[in-house]
Amino acid sequence: MKKDNIISGDRFYVTYSLSGSEVEANAKAKDICIEQTVEFPPPLIPVGMIQGHVLGRIESFEPWDEGYKVKISFAIETTANELTQLLNVVFGNISIKPGIKVDDIELPPSLLNQYNGPRFGREGLRRILGDVERPLLFTALKPMGLSAQQLAELAYKFALGGIDIIKDDHGLTDQCFAPFNERVRLCTAAVAKANRETGNCSIYVPNVTAGGSKLIKRAKQAKEAGAGGILVAPGLVGLDTMRELADDDSIGLPIFSHPAFIGSYIISPENGFSHQVLFGKIMRLAGADAVIYPNFGGRFSFSQQECEAIVQGTHVSMGTIKSIFPAPGGGMSIERVPEMHRVYGNDVMFLIGGGLFQRGPDIVENCRYFREMLNLRCTNA
Amino acid sequence: MKKDNIISGDRFYVTYSLSGSEVEANAKAKDICIEQTVEFPPPLIPVGMIQGHVLGRIESFEPWDEGYKVKISFAIETTANELTQLLNVVFGNISIKPGIKVDDIELPPSLLNQYNGPRFGREGLRRILGDVERPLLFTALKPMGLSAQQLAELAYKFALGGIDIIKDDHGLTDQCFAPFNERVRLCTAAVAKANRETGNCSIYVPNVTAGGSKLIKRAKQAKEAGAGGILVAPGLVGLDTMRELADDDSIGLPIFSHPAFIGSYIISPENGFSHQVLFGKIMRLAGADAVIYPNFGGRFSFSQQECEAIVQGTHVSMGTIKSIFPAPGGGMSIERVPEMHRVYGNDVMFLIGGGLFQRGPDIVENCRYFREMLNLRCTNA
Repeated sequence: MKKDNIISGDRFYVTYSLSGSEVEANAKAKDICIEQTVEFPPPLIPVGMIQGHVLGRIESFEPWDEGYKVKISFAIETTANELTQLLNVVFGNISIKPGIKVDDIELPPSLLNQYNGPRFGREGLRRILGDVERPLLFTALKPMGLSAQQLAELAYKFALGGIDIIKDDHGLTDQCFAPFNERVRLCTAAVAKANRETGNCSIYVPNVTAGGSKLIKRAKQAKEAGAGGILVAPGLVGLDTMRELADDDSIGLPIFSHPAFIGSYIISPENGFSHQVLFGKIMRLAGADAVIYPNFGGRFSFSQQECEAIVQGTHVSMGTIKSIFPAPGGGMSIERVPEMHRVYGNDVMFLIGGGLFQRGPDIVENCRYFREMLNLRCTNA
Repeated sequence: MKKDNIISGDRFYVTYSLSGSEVEANAKAKDICIEQTVEFPPPLIPVGMIQGHVLGRIESFEPWDEGYKVKISFAIETTANELTQLLNVVFGNISIKPGIKVDDIELPPSLLNQYNGPRFGREGLRRILGDVERPLLFTALKPMGLSAQQLAELAYKFALGGIDIIKDDHGLTDQCFAPFNERVRLCTAAVAKANRETGNCSIYVPNVTAGGSKLIKRAKQAKEAGAGGILVAPGLVGLDTMRELADDDSIGLPIFSHPAFIGSYIISPENGFSHQVLFGKIMRLAGADAVIYPNFGGRFSFSQQECEAIVQGTHVSMGTIKSIFPAPGGGMSIERVPEMHRVYGNDVMFLIGGGLFQRGPDIVENCRYFREMLNLRCTNA
């Protein structure tokens, strides 16, 4: 195929799982090539560059346990170097068509080079958190309705007990109960006080999830107050908005992505994205340094296999894009730490929220127990 | 229940469809009350304001054709006057749990008053488009790969043929084929030229979908170039980002929302949102003046009943929030205009894209035929 001057010839690859008979799946595959690019009646698609390069191209089509898998390639120029438009080519209009799921994406260096990815990644986060080699301990300030002062007292206890990362619960934004500014100021100070007493490097991570300009403003306020990272729910603010936060040198804080409102892209076996792609590859492109997701065996429905696929997505080779931390959570108990350590190894953040309150009334003691369980595991490993 | 000073006592209501047996559905209902607010072990939820107000409350629970419906109320203070956080309370974490679908939302005046909604709505858009009473004609510039000059020539022909609204195809952003600035300048000029010749009030609507600050920049460029509206895909940029565009007085253009990448919230019968809520009520809260969605009988899978529910959502009473235009499209042919007019009446925008190219090589003639079909229908009605 002769290249047009304007086109590099570089393509990226998306593997889709398609449901239905061979005839139906084949029709879907052909439809994806059109729908995601030219969206034009096939007989009228202009020959030359548009038909030869802009139109999606079927690279392989084969049966699979539950239907068919098709690999389709797209010219990198269709994405205009924008994450929003990359996502649009991968799954824009076909998100509204039944029986199409994004199974994998493969991006060439010429496309990956357009993205900085996470600013810190696994190594950068370990550096901030004191260069320990064990799994990291992660918890959340809750419940909604407590005052900023009460949340700060809780943050102090968590840090005193040895929790590495203390985030806001994802539902805490700027409610009258605990306004953002006051909460960030008090919680940052509380964790710093505990660090002075313990010698640890715990960080407080406020939730900055909010609409466009408010989000940036809160992230800057978090930076000024001395927070150690920020929590963002890209399902609520947009994945590319998170990427912009990661790229913003005036913020420069580690980003923890929260899965709120993004579940509809993952929950159906026949629509959306595979776990590895959404919580791994896409979160890395979108600048997350750690990705929170529901652990298997908790109160959500992910399987162990799906969680292992996420871990794979957090560190599989993607050019210069850094590896990030998987942060499984959601209804976890301290007692499950040994099982989780066996599955995840050391490169993980264990997110235990409500579970830290349940062992007894002494929060500091509960945290120490959590940390000791882990130290014991790591010493014996 | 005694009110705490900080809480108004006003609540909003969400009706969820739940799958499963009565026992399972009941457990899901109780879980939603916790998961979407305090996310805390039930025995430890503090009594007083948190248990009495912050925690979600089951208002009704009843069987339904395919499971159970539960109506749950939440304190308006949980939303912090933010659309992101409203969406988070309605469907944040439970988006990751199977068998829960948002069927309806009912918002009290005290909550609705926090939102401006669409700037123009149906009446405002009709005023801009020449105060005609018939359905409005809507089309898209495509295929991707044409130059800005070629797209502008097409825009000129569409406007000459009497199309009211000529938008970019949603895949056109800032590709090298037709860079945003050049495209907007040329297409705006082309439509203005046609208007001078026809005396019509056609508008050009560029696609401004992009990451955070780029989106605002493009919307402002569109305004400066004299575009008549802007196209945004809230599934890609975030619903609250669209709201911020609508509220921005320095832009002040009608907003056309595109469904790209939002399909996963609607395609499953057991997860996400009902058509009426997502494409009607939520799009209005998020500031869209017209909502594009796949029409029944096109190349997507919406039923006529689902499309009628969307229409309902575009004009059902929501305090001072204006009614907006439904804009069904996607694989529509000119021949279906009479059928669509019977179903939709006059308060609709008919979006025909590829179909306008298929009748014959003369685009202007095809557009005139589309408009004549409609005029004929409206005269005979």
